[in-house]
Parts: sequence; structure tokens; C-alpha cells
Amino acid sequence: MEKITSMHNPRVQAWRSLKTKSGREAEGAFLVEGFKSVGEALNSSFELLALILQEDVPLPEGYPEDRTFLVPAHLLAAVCDTKTPQGIAAVMRMKHQQVTGKRLLALDGVQDPGNVGTILRTADAAGLDGVLYSSQCADPFSPKVLRATMGSVFHLPVEECPDLASRLRTLDMPVLASRLDGDPFFSMLPSLPDTWCLIIGNEGNGISPEVTASASHLVRLPMHGAAESLNAAVAAGIMMYALTNRQDL
Amino acid sequence: MEKITSMHNPRVQAWRSLKTKSGREAEGAFLVEGFKSVGEALNSSFELLALILQEDVPLPEGYPEDRTFLVPAHLLAAVCDTKTPQGIAAVMRMKHQQVTGKRLLALDGVQDPGNVGTILRTADAAGLDGVLYSSQCADPFSPKVLRATMGSVFHLPVEECPDLASRLRTLDMPVLASRLDGDPFFSMLPSLPDTWCLIIGNEGNGISPEVTASASHLVRLPMHGAAESLNAAVAAGIMMYALTNRQDL
Repeated sequence: MEKITSMHNPRVQAWRSLKTKSGREAEGAFLVEGFKSVGEALNSSFELLALILQEDVPLPEGYPEDRTFLVPAHLLAAVCDTKTPQGIAAVMRMKHQQVTGKRLLALDGVQDPGNVGTILRTADAAGLDGVLYSSQCADPFSPKVLRATMGSVFHLPVEECPDLASRLRTLDMPVLASRLDGDPFFSMLPSLPDTWCLIIGNEGNGISPEVTASASHLVRLPMHGAAESLNAAVAAGIMMYALTNRQDL
Repeated sequence: MEKITSMHNPRVQAWRSLKTKSGREAEGAFLVEGFKSVGEALNSSFELLALILQEDVPLPEGYPEDRTFLVPAHLLAAVCDTKTPQGIAAVMRMKHQQVTGKRLLALDGVQDPGNVGTILRTADAAGLDGVLYSSQCADPFSPKVLRATMGSVFHLPVEECPDLASRLRTLDMPVLASRLDGDPFFSMLPSLPDTWCLIIGNEGNGISPEVTASASHLVRLPMHGAAESLNAAVAAGIMMYALTNRQDL
């Protein structure tokens, strides 16, 4: 275990840069905060680059000493995004993931970190195979989204798509887009194919015209009362769970 | 239109007290902020007590001059919860609502204002008849929840229940509780009755034992992957939409 006390240590500078997307891309790494999330990260297929441990916190059994750095509390706080980090953080190597499978989700410009995190958590719970996301989405590896995913990114493959419309056309599977002018989702559900990719659009503007053009089915959820729309994460949850559980109905 | 310029004006003091639940209860009123929400409030069955207008903002056509108070921008900002109020706010009279109908929701200690707001918005969109909520829930008439409801509280009756368990027993209808040890929700869906009240529990602790004892059906949503639970608003949305749309399946 190496001890680091100076804010000017180049490692500390690199860790602090992981708060921004450009920093994460430059370092090819992201930061995970707190015991629960670090435990999930270590049990995942992601590679640990460094374990940052507050000097008065014991290293949990089985954690790798050789990659552990002991730091004072104020230095850990400077590295972390949470106001009260729980004494531990882990730097994980980013990896390129290619999403495959029969039940996929595609996020087109979903910008609220809480929404992206909640959607990934829900996609994992619904048993999806992976999530494609456009570069305009909140980054799944940002501290805020990571917290909201509750560890799901360590199990559910996610793939950034600089050109989501083109990526969708390579899938060779039915692509469902949720739109206000679509066909009734629940009436269509029994006839929808077993293999699908469901697109969720931006909170204010919905799915972009280019991405919509890649869709094979346009669907809409029923909307009663004064409501003009549903929260993006709620709409995604309703459709994913209905699609993955319709055989039980 | 009356002009108010002093922070010490008793009306201003009363309006500022509406930020807290005790203040709202003492005044029997709540505050609505921004043009869109104020418009929805004025079109609702709630009674307008006062319209607070920033002095350089024109009164929209058809709005009641006799209940309008012109105030400087800093005074409106002091009354409002949002950092940048849009020049208008309305003080509405609170009213006692008794929830009735065939499709109800009950919130048992849902504490996150965003969750309560999103759940009310979703319940309205799903076409429910009303929402019961325990006194431990985030208050639907607090500024944060009101914003997240997107105007739904002006259309969907909500009723505070100091003793939710007892209130549920007066309903004389099937009561569904979502629990990790319940029966599979989707398998049960076709056999669930047409009339129901669905309970959603606290984010961390779920539904309390007392409230669970009032339930006639225990159900659970399937949970794959690393997920241990779903966000409360997402779970509520999945179940409400499945329940209200199963005839189309």
C-alpha cells in the first residue's frame, strides 16, 4: 500500500480529472465511490486500476493491497463527487463494450443523469441484454449516473453510439420508437416480435427525426388526465416490463 | 390591483409561510409558481385566494384583477421556492378531498418529493381515480412535489390519511401490496379484480407492516440482473399501466 498525502501528486490530479467526461476519456478510466459500489465494481468484469482508501479505514479482506493507495480524508473528498465519501473509491478501467442480444434499449439524448441512471437500473431489473446510448446522453460513467444505476453498469453492457441512427440500422431487428403519434402500445404488444430494440428519447424533445427514421414500429402509451407526457424513466420502465413479461399475461 | 412593496406586509409574511407544511396547514392554502402551473390552477376546481404578479409583468387576459397583487421582483423571489420565478405565482385555497373510485393508489411513506410528484403525474396519465397518501409522505402541495406533478394535483383527487392502514380497510375493495415475497405480478394480472387500490411503499423500507396487513393481495415484480429493487416511481408506473391496460392485451 502506497501512501499519498500531496494534492499535487500526479495520480491525484489524474483521479480528480475523472469527474468530467473529457477527463474519463483521456484517462480511459472512471471512478466508483463508496463501499457498496466499489464491491460491485471489484466483482465485475471491469479491471481495477487503483483503490483509494482513507488512511484510517481498514482495507476490507480480499481487496488487493498492491493497488491500494492510502490518502488523508480531505484528499479522498477532493477526488470524489459525493460530499461525504465513505472512505473508499476505486478507479476502474473503461472498456469498449459491444451490445448484442435479443432485447435492447437505445437512449437518444436522455440528458438528466437521474433518468439515465434509473433507466439503466430498470433495464437491468427487466432482464435486458444491453443498452445503446447516443453521445448526447448523460454519461453512464459520470459519478451522478453511476450512483443512480445502483451498480447496474457492472452487469448490463452499455455502448456509446456517436451515430445512434446508423448503429440502429446495423441491428437487423425490429426497432420500436415511442412517439405521441404512434400506434397504441398495449394493443400492439401481443403482435410485437420477440426480438426488439426500444428507443427512449430526450425529456423535452423526444426521439430525433434521424433516429426515428431507423425505427420499424412507432408506438405510444395511453395518456389520460391532464398529463401531456410521462417521465422518461417511467415510460421506459412501463414498456420494458410489459415487453419482457407479456408471455405471463 | 393592489401594490405591495414591503417585505413586512402581513400578506407577504403569510405567503412566505406556505413553503412549509405547517405554514400551509395554518393558512389553509398553497402556492403555485410560474405561468403554466398558475394557468392550470385557475382552470381547476381549487379556489384562487391571491394572484401575485411581478410589477413589470402584464396580467394575462381573463385573470382576476381584484385578487391580483403587484410586487417587485425581489419580493416575488422571496415568496417563491424556485430560484427564478417567472413573474407570477398564485395562492390557492387547500380543500379537503375524499378519494373514491375503482382504481386507486395509496402511498405509504414515499418520502422523496420527486418520486411523489412523478407518481402523481403517472397516476393521472394512467387514468386512476385518486391517490391516498400517509402523512409520512412528501406533501403533494409542497413546491417541489407540485413542480414534479406537472399540474396533475389539479385534476387527480389526493387525500391525506393520518392512519392509512385504517383508511384502506374502509375501502371495501381489493388492496394490492407490492412486496419482495409476493406472488408474481404479471402471472396474477389476468385474475386480479377490476376494482383495486395499489399500495406503493417507502423507498428504503417498503410498505409498513400495519399497512401491509390491510392488503388482500401481495404481489412482486420480476427482478433480474444485479438490481435489488426498482425506483418507487418506476415500479408504480409499471404496475398502474399494466393494471389499467390489461384489457387491451
